[in-house]
Amino acid sequence: MAQLRSLLLPTIFCLGGLMGNYFDRYTQSKNIVAEKASLVTTTDNKCSLGDIPSSAKEIMKFGFPSCENLKFREDYVLSYNRVHRTANWVIEHLTADKVFQRDFKRKSSMFKEDTSVPVLFRSTKKDYRNSGFDRGHLAPAGDHGYSLKALKDTFYLSNMSPQVGVGFNRDIWKRLEEYTRNQTRVYTDIYVITGPLYLPKESAEKDGKRYVKYQVIGKNDVSVPTHFFKIIVGDNRKKKSNAQLQLQVFQMPNEKISKGTPLDEYKTSLKSVEKASGLLFLDKASSLAIATDRSAI
Amino acid sequence: MAQLRSLLLPTIFCLGGLMGNYFDRYTQSKNIVAEKASLVTTTDNKCSLGDIPSSAKEIMKFGFPSCENLKFREDYVLSYNRVHRTANWVIEHLTADKVFQRDFKRKSSMFKEDTSVPVLFRSTKKDYRNSGFDRGHLAPAGDHGYSLKALKDTFYLSNMSPQVGVGFNRDIWKRLEEYTRNQTRVYTDIYVITGPLYLPKESAEKDGKRYVKYQVIGKNDVSVPTHFFKIIVGDNRKKKSNAQLQLQVFQMPNEKISKGTPLDEYKTSLKSVEKASGLLFLDKASSLAIATDRSAI
Repeated sequence: MAQLRSLLLPTIFCLGGLMGNYFDRYTQSKNIVAEKASLVTTTDNKCSLGDIPSSAKEIMKFGFPSCENLKFREDYVLSYNRVHRTANWVIEHLTADKVFQRDFKRKSSMFKEDTSVPVLFRSTKKDYRNSGFDRGHLAPAGDHGYSLKALKDTFYLSNMSPQVGVGFNRDIWKRLEEYTRNQTRVYTDIYVITGPLYLPKESAEKDGKRYVKYQVIGKNDVSVPTHFFKIIVGDNRKKKSNAQLQLQVFQMPNEKISKGTPLDEYKTSLKSVEKASGLLFLDKASSLAIATDRSAI
Repeated sequence: MAQLRSLLLPTIFCLGGLMGNYFDRYTQSKNIVAEKASLVTTTDNKCSLGDIPSSAKEIMKFGFPSCENLKFREDYVLSYNRVHRTANWVIEHLTADKVFQRDFKRKSSMFKEDTSVPVLFRSTKKDYRNSGFDRGHLAPAGDHGYSLKALKDTFYLSNMSPQVGVGFNRDIWKRLEEYTRNQTRVYTDIYVITGPLYLPKESAEKDGKRYVKYQVIGKNDVSVPTHFFKIIVGDNRKKKSNAQLQLQVFQMPNEKISKGTPLDEYKTSLKSVEKASGLLFLDKASSLAIATDRSAI
């Protein structure tokens, strides 16, 4: 009954909108419209969502960085950017149980278009073909081998960004992903936020001007990020109730990086990634609980 | 009573979010959080909003292109982009009564920071100073001289984009704004959607690669759009109930354009602006009502 009541009013609110919405243009999927609505709050936006799967509630424990085009998958949550045709951010919840139980191999999965994205804004396999870039997972396949569904869900192209292959995706970025998984040996729960950045730099003409410049690939102009970020929150409060959340923030250029370069060279501040991404992270994490780390960043 | 009931449930939904939200970092304003929530629907997102002013209901008659960081002003509605530090889109509703009643001059207004935007993502007057770019209004001051409040509201820096001055903002773009206002002599109601674009182009090296490149200005890296779009919907249904909506779509490069160049040279298709902006426009306009125009674009 309580559940019914909690759905009634948002449904009424939505109805007016739905009735006026005659177009379903450029999209092949109506699934989202049929969803029941519920609300979540971000730092200063309120997002209206479909029913959130219970797994997502755990994944999104520390808040939504933004509300734009949310996709709830088996074991991650993603916000899709329709201009860039790749994600704004992807959030995962990792535990040792999950990440080291690799019953399913990535060979059992195939890259696939995300049909929940309108065709006009969707990236395709063809966009990546002969581009010179890897289809780089944001939520890595290697985090979700415990479940065939979870693994397969990481292969949506909405979870890919064009990444430099040799020297980045297949090397240092892979090392960062392995490092992240290994943090589940240190913390009972790991929350990971991953996403692309498009950073400005000084102009080559040294005239003091700054430009953002990035390549786009394929017919759908999929953006090639200049950098990627990964935010790792280590949570040991299940072990020790007063444990502080531990925060590690990485930002790496999407380019060939010399073998053996320490990951630590790419540590940065949360604020720097927030400024560059336009996102505010971890708004539901108590400022007290992560004070030690935040003060340093 | 009905009003009370319509507020009760969204309030309960929000409460959970608010209670977990300990941070109000990088922002000076809590106004948004205190707002009462209601919902609107876009093509495949549902937006949760504060109470919509009744004027906004008319302005937003044909739907929300997106839900991101919405700002409801006296006589326009804006979606703010936190990465670019300028709008995604601005929507106005114009009538002859309003646009030709110029009781208040723009000299009575001053540019001002938008304190509803978190400091980290906010553009400032200093960002524009000595940048070589004008603070170009998206909702033009000249559309809103009938009311001091409406006029002043167009001076929020969130409603500005860096525009080339001579040859663009002060010339052809101004002509387009005047043309738009004059359309209120042809249609009883005009709905205008204005926004920036960041378009890719072939690389100078002619290697077949395509890049998006745009300047950023000031300490806050305010993006200088490569282009701007303006979508004009002419609605004569008050005069003639079966009148079709008339659609005109313009896209102009943010650069000096030769004096006297006809506006028509910059006409484009709605789909082209949709693809470039990542937005779907007019989702609440009946496809039948604007079929004639849509078929041609």
